[in-house]
Amino acid sequence: MAKALLTPRAVDFPRWYQDVVAKAELAENGPARGSMVIRPTGYALWERIQRELDDRIKAAGAANAYFPLLIPESYLRREAEHVEGFSPELAVVTIGGGKQLEEPLVVRPTSETVIGESMARWIESYRDLPLLLNQWSNVVRWELRTRLFLRTSEFLWQEGHTAHVSEADARDYARRILHDVYQDVLVNVLSMPVVVGRKTVRERFAGATSTYTLEAMMGDGKALQMGTSHELGQNFARAFGIDYLAASGQRELVWTTSWGITTRLIGGVVMAHGDDLGLRVPPRLAPVQVEILVVREGDGVAEVARKLTTALLGAGVRATLNERVDIPFGRRAIGEKIAVPIDGVVSLVTAALEADQKTLYEQALTRQRQRTADVTSVPEAIEAASAGWARLPWSEVGSEGEAELNAQGVTVRCLVRADGGVPDSEDEPDLVAVVGRAY
Amino acid sequence: MAKALLTPRAVDFPRWYQDVVAKAELAENGPARGSMVIRPTGYALWERIQRELDDRIKAAGAANAYFPLLIPESYLRREAEHVEGFSPELAVVTIGGGKQLEEPLVVRPTSETVIGESMARWIESYRDLPLLLNQWSNVVRWELRTRLFLRTSEFLWQEGHTAHVSEADARDYARRILHDVYQDVLVNVLSMPVVVGRKTVRERFAGATSTYTLEAMMGDGKALQMGTSHELGQNFARAFGIDYLAASGQRELVWTTSWGITTRLIGGVVMAHGDDLGLRVPPRLAPVQVEILVVREGDGVAEVARKLTTALLGAGVRATLNERVDIPFGRRAIGEKIAVPIDGVVSLVTAALEADQKTLYEQALTRQRQRTADVTSVPEAIEAASAGWARLPWSEVGSEGEAELNAQGVTVRCLVRADGGVPDSEDEPDLVAVVGRAY
Repeated sequence: MAKALLTPRAVDFPRWYQDVVAKAELAENGPARGSMVIRPTGYALWERIQRELDDRIKAAGAANAYFPLLIPESYLRREAEHVEGFSPELAVVTIGGGKQLEEPLVVRPTSETVIGESMARWIESYRDLPLLLNQWSNVVRWELRTRLFLRTSEFLWQEGHTAHVSEADARDYARRILHDVYQDVLVNVLSMPVVVGRKTVRERFAGATSTYTLEAMMGDGKALQMGTSHELGQNFARAFGIDYLAASGQRELVWTTSWGITTRLIGGVVMAHGDDLGLRVPPRLAPVQVEILVVREGDGVAEVARKLTTALLGAGVRATLNERVDIPFGRRAIGEKIAVPIDGVVSLVTAALEADQKTLYEQALTRQRQRTADVTSVPEAIEAASAGWARLPWSEVGSEGEAELNAQGVTVRCLVRADGGVPDSEDEPDLVAVVGRAY
Repeated sequence: MAKALLTPRAVDFPRWYQDVVAKAELAENGPARGSMVIRPTGYALWERIQRELDDRIKAAGAANAYFPLLIPESYLRREAEHVEGFSPELAVVTIGGGKQLEEPLVVRPTSETVIGESMARWIESYRDLPLLLNQWSNVVRWELRTRLFLRTSEFLWQEGHTAHVSEADARDYARRILHDVYQDVLVNVLSMPVVVGRKTVRERFAGATSTYTLEAMMGDGKALQMGTSHELGQNFARAFGIDYLAASGQRELVWTTSWGITTRLIGGVVMAHGDDLGLRVPPRLAPVQVEILVVREGDGVAEVARKLTTALLGAGVRATLNERVDIPFGRRAIGEKIAVPIDGVVSLVTAALEADQKTLYEQALTRQRQRTADVTSVPEAIEAASAGWARLPWSEVGSEGEAELNAQGVTVRCLVRADGGVPDSEDEPDLVAVVGRAY
């Protein structure tokens, strides 16, 4: 990696990104337009992300299930805003087993509709609630302008769908996922500082009553939406007839949530932590945390290297031994080479991994702070968005100001309270709008 | 489960199977023809199977990667036998983003072709070999007669694809997967005795030079093919131009293998271990091994139950505490209820889990032995296949005998050596054919 020639970030950030993804062998374009092959190194990152998310999703009480890839077209039409949101992006199967199908099948752009229909059958009474489901799968959304990981016609994700007896329960759960699952993994595993807030009505998910988001700043000052968690009110419940027998004896509609995180996170890791030498992966995310290289033969060096590998593995470090290579070694996060007596290696390595994990977070946080400007008007915000983000009073923006921003390619990434908290509504007083350009 | 009314196996085995899958809430039909919704309990079994297989696949040196769902139709035409094998089963996307596509895209029936094309680009010299790839994904093969888990239009699986410098290396690897990964998981995790052998030329995978298989006997005496591992010779290498610069300086074609196991395994567990009371899951596979039920309130019972749960979790047992239910408890494998002093529970439970794991294996093995007849002629084999399997000299069958068997709905499940070993070719002397009806 270090030797490969990369376009410097300052010269052309998108090309630098492309170069890193290619040279680190993370992914490449697939044969069909907009498709992606995730190579072993890239997929290993996804497996680590999956494991970290999945453990926390299960700890939050949700169970994994699997719903079909192909969905009858009529299903998508049941929820008006939903179909409107997805129609232009659909891939449609019209031939099956050599025959024209009577009803075309859509390749799922999300499983929301099938899951809604299943929930309607599975939920009978309040005793079946909350129903907490999650799915790991691939989805397809036709895209003309694609970029590896960030925007591809097919991507991998998890989508959670839950049903609750009350709006308050649904809200609590959507926020539990937001903070205890997503924010925890992004901050503590991916070393990414995030602004956690509420989407404006204009930016929120089709059919949602609240969309919560986690936004991270990339190396070029642009925002990447890392994950979202939605309250859907009773919209989906009404469209799919998801009701239950309440303790009162009445049939009531449930309140639902949905939440998802995708393979675009890998692109986020590249763009948030990478430098002009290439990829930098936070140690807790790295599939291989330490590679031991034998740089000199003889003198029992190979034997020492093997013992060291075993000792590191025993200390819970993901270490591998590479006896074939003869290049020197150092710490990638800080670009430093250190000589240590063999007895001190394990404790030094475990401390260094913790330190590097923090360093990456702090570097990203420093950039985010330096490149976020506090402003008081929409024109100033547009100006600031050329270099990073702007924070300004939401009361100064409003619906009209938001349109003005959008016309310049700038969006309200989210609304936050003055103390950084997540608002219950965009009508709360004293909200701050975080605005910027985004991927 | 125990209370639900099931069709007895002896009355109607297929309906019993359907009943168990429905009442144990493993899966149900999806909205599109032949599709399946895998419910949380069924999916938890798949997650356990995945974890056990994946650990062993990685230990065998293969790395996971991900290849696109949608494949240009022209890709499938590159390998003649391959396209012939899959053509009648394809689901085809003809519309994308609201427009008719210039070239239709096939929903992958396997990723063999895209992986072949990627290998051709990734392999340059002998130093890149062996290249050992695996993928966890969904695939679609149009089916008219479907049965949950056993045969569905979409299923989940892993497919491994590897490239080697020599035929011997490829063979070693195909067999390493067969024994160290598949057989190990089937026998030691799923408690399933399997006959491991070689498919006849007539039964082997399209394009393969050798197909190895693991066959298990179900509760009705029929065979279920649990997994296969193939040597593809240089057929795919030739079709996709997968060559490398040998140490000799010459360009040589690689030798490839492929191997897969699918969600049909869950159906196999149901049919191999289930009884007239329903599902029996081997402890090592069970997502929940022990459920602690509070059957009597007061007297600090709930507190004891919580402590016990903690102690079992501490002993590595997958235990859950269910405080809401008030039904008694027992060991499902043997249908026995035992009273134990609280201090002895952890050691009793861990021993009982090991014992039940063995019991299920032994019961299945006993059935397989009792229902396998040693015969000497094709007519006798057909007769024996009405109740189970037959073993007879392959020399008594041959191509003509195989056609005779097939005409009666009986197939050669595999060929084995007299000592149970796996043959290198069907021309070896003294081979035994294991024949039966199959799912």
